[in-house]
Amino acid sequence: MTLTVPTTYKALTEATAIALAKTVYTFDHAAQLTCREIGDGNLNYVFQIEDTETGKRIIIKQALPYAKIIGESWPLTLKRATIEANVLRKHGEFVPSLVPAVYATDEELAITVMEDLSHLEIVREGLINGQNFPRLSKDIGEYLALTLFHTSDYGLHPFEKKRLAAEFSNPELCKITEDLIFTDPFFDIDTNDYEPQLQSAAEAIWSDRKLQLEVAKLKKSFLTESEALLHGDLHTGSVFASQTETKVIDPEFGFYGPIGFDVGLFLANLIFQSITREGENRQVIVDDIGKTWEVFASSFGELWNKQSVESFRATEGYLEYVLGKVLTDATGFAGCELIRRTIGLAHVKDLDSIEDTEKRTSFKKQALETGRALILQGQQTASIDDLLEILEEARK
Amino acid sequence: MTLTVPTTYKALTEATAIALAKTVYTFDHAAQLTCREIGDGNLNYVFQIEDTETGKRIIIKQALPYAKIIGESWPLTLKRATIEANVLRKHGEFVPSLVPAVYATDEELAITVMEDLSHLEIVREGLINGQNFPRLSKDIGEYLALTLFHTSDYGLHPFEKKRLAAEFSNPELCKITEDLIFTDPFFDIDTNDYEPQLQSAAEAIWSDRKLQLEVAKLKKSFLTESEALLHGDLHTGSVFASQTETKVIDPEFGFYGPIGFDVGLFLANLIFQSITREGENRQVIVDDIGKTWEVFASSFGELWNKQSVESFRATEGYLEYVLGKVLTDATGFAGCELIRRTIGLAHVKDLDSIEDTEKRTSFKKQALETGRALILQGQQTASIDDLLEILEEARK
Repeated sequence: MTLTVPTTYKALTEATAIALAKTVYTFDHAAQLTCREIGDGNLNYVFQIEDTETGKRIIIKQALPYAKIIGESWPLTLKRATIEANVLRKHGEFVPSLVPAVYATDEELAITVMEDLSHLEIVREGLINGQNFPRLSKDIGEYLALTLFHTSDYGLHPFEKKRLAAEFSNPELCKITEDLIFTDPFFDIDTNDYEPQLQSAAEAIWSDRKLQLEVAKLKKSFLTESEALLHGDLHTGSVFASQTETKVIDPEFGFYGPIGFDVGLFLANLIFQSITREGENRQVIVDDIGKTWEVFASSFGELWNKQSVESFRATEGYLEYVLGKVLTDATGFAGCELIRRTIGLAHVKDLDSIEDTEKRTSFKKQALETGRALILQGQQTASIDDLLEILEEARK
Repeated sequence: MTLTVPTTYKALTEATAIALAKTVYTFDHAAQLTCREIGDGNLNYVFQIEDTETGKRIIIKQALPYAKIIGESWPLTLKRATIEANVLRKHGEFVPSLVPAVYATDEELAITVMEDLSHLEIVREGLINGQNFPRLSKDIGEYLALTLFHTSDYGLHPFEKKRLAAEFSNPELCKITEDLIFTDPFFDIDTNDYEPQLQSAAEAIWSDRKLQLEVAKLKKSFLTESEALLHGDLHTGSVFASQTETKVIDPEFGFYGPIGFDVGLFLANLIFQSITREGENRQVIVDDIGKTWEVFASSFGELWNKQSVESFRATEGYLEYVLGKVLTDATGFAGCELIRRTIGLAHVKDLDSIEDTEKRTSFKKQALETGRALILQGQQTASIDDLLEILEEARK
């Protein structure tokens, strides 16, 4: 599929970003604006515009027509900027305090003008530095319940749900997930990236037929199950937080998919911390995993009981069936995320930043073993305690 | 959702249909054309245009902006004409001999100009009259395998599959199925239609909580599982046949849904005949049920082995898993069809045309009992013989 950059598309500079900021956001008439590009430059420009007098800041995010994930340029649809802004707006209808406000968008320029969140910290960074975020599990549990319930067939008229499912069709970004999470790490493929001391562990995965069959089923679920409007990439690097606030950003992978995918990806990224931490610090993470699920399940159940539009909402066992499916799906998806972040193309700093080679290797092996167990036992997971038990087993 | 009729839409008359025929199809210059409206007038006009000299005939089908299903007018999207024509074209790429050729379409007028099939008979009518169609099970088995494989993630690049899924979004027609097959018959609702002597049998269904839970799951599958481009309404009234030919018509309910739905609906409509027939005549139908499945499964498996684009295509057990899911889904969907055609809004002539009240009542009770058993045992169906065994049990 060839991707063409619209002729009107032009990469912003700090100067043009300031000019644009003035047209879309009401600064004081005489405001002196400064601009800094603070993105990592791999996928997007992120311009932070500041009124030097008042300190008021906004963000202009611009998608680049390529990605640098594999070392070189890889064309990538600019439509993802529109998807991202529209997911933020749609999810913002249900959890306004948990996502950044969107002030303006321009589809041709692939830009989103939005709330600045630089007073918060990226959760992954904070966790790696040993910090904890006391509101995180409750906020993300509610974020998951509210955004996913309200965009599902339980919360929406079927006409509106199908309209949204078509609007949020996101083939290019889904393909990245299909390849990088559900396919490549399970085959001996060039783009996989792992340390030499993991060679035999990686080979064990590539030759595990039972594992591959379960991954094939999980991939099928990702490809076909249009349950709700997902964030699509809900790892701890997609969450800003402080001690008092949580904001979910970057839903450019948003699409209609299986609810368990958002849940599972987030849990997996906490699981990395449950692998690298010890003692009380670890217990905080284990508690967060449990609480994220409990809050999600109870909030989802409350919405179901109060607001479901489904005729079978009162059918005995149906809510339990739906939540049970989310949990088994999430367990399997979490397993795929653990494996792909360890031997696939895109890693996590939680593991890679550990300098001691022996420790790092041991953690990575544990991540692989945990991932394998979650995938193989996913369908038997009947409660969050079962999932937590799998984590403990893999530490032995 | 309000449906507006485009201002350029105009119901055809026999005269304007002839004029239109001349502009879209090459008849001989001096051809004398006659026209007859042969539709049942509930949903569509069907004009048959004939060249009186050569006998050459074509069909112009025009969607009406309303349906008369419930005795009065019910606004119904005209877009269904475009969906129907595009499904015929898409499926025609894979099974050109099993669907009518489409010569032309006009979206504004909601018309499809297509091959005339009046030399064939509607399968339901033929079966009710005791006829058999020796090619039917093999042709439908292949139709199902080819159309569903080639529009699934196993047969298509994910970009193309997602493009088609969005193109064939069909909310209005899906809603009819969601209500009439998966909801209303399982609740005591005014629009249900059943004979007084079925009162207690109907009430038994409305109070069967286990049954409702399984139906809720099947409805969820219909609402969310975007596996392949379905026909969407594949009953025996949607198939024309003779001793040597089979043509599937009327895919206006087409959308991306679970593969087992097309399979299950067709099997259910054969099952009505397995209920009303006796002895050798019945055995022909039982054999057709078995053969439809066997041909579908073996053709689908052959396509999988030769043409699948899925990376896990060679993973041991994956094809068996996919076919197993189609069968369990199909069994449950067939059960819903049996029940809704017996006590729901839209009936089948197979049962309703039986004049003897005692016989008719007994058959209808058997249809309900069979439907119930198929739904409750659907998930345990491991082979087509298991399904056939359920039919035998329900006759006892």
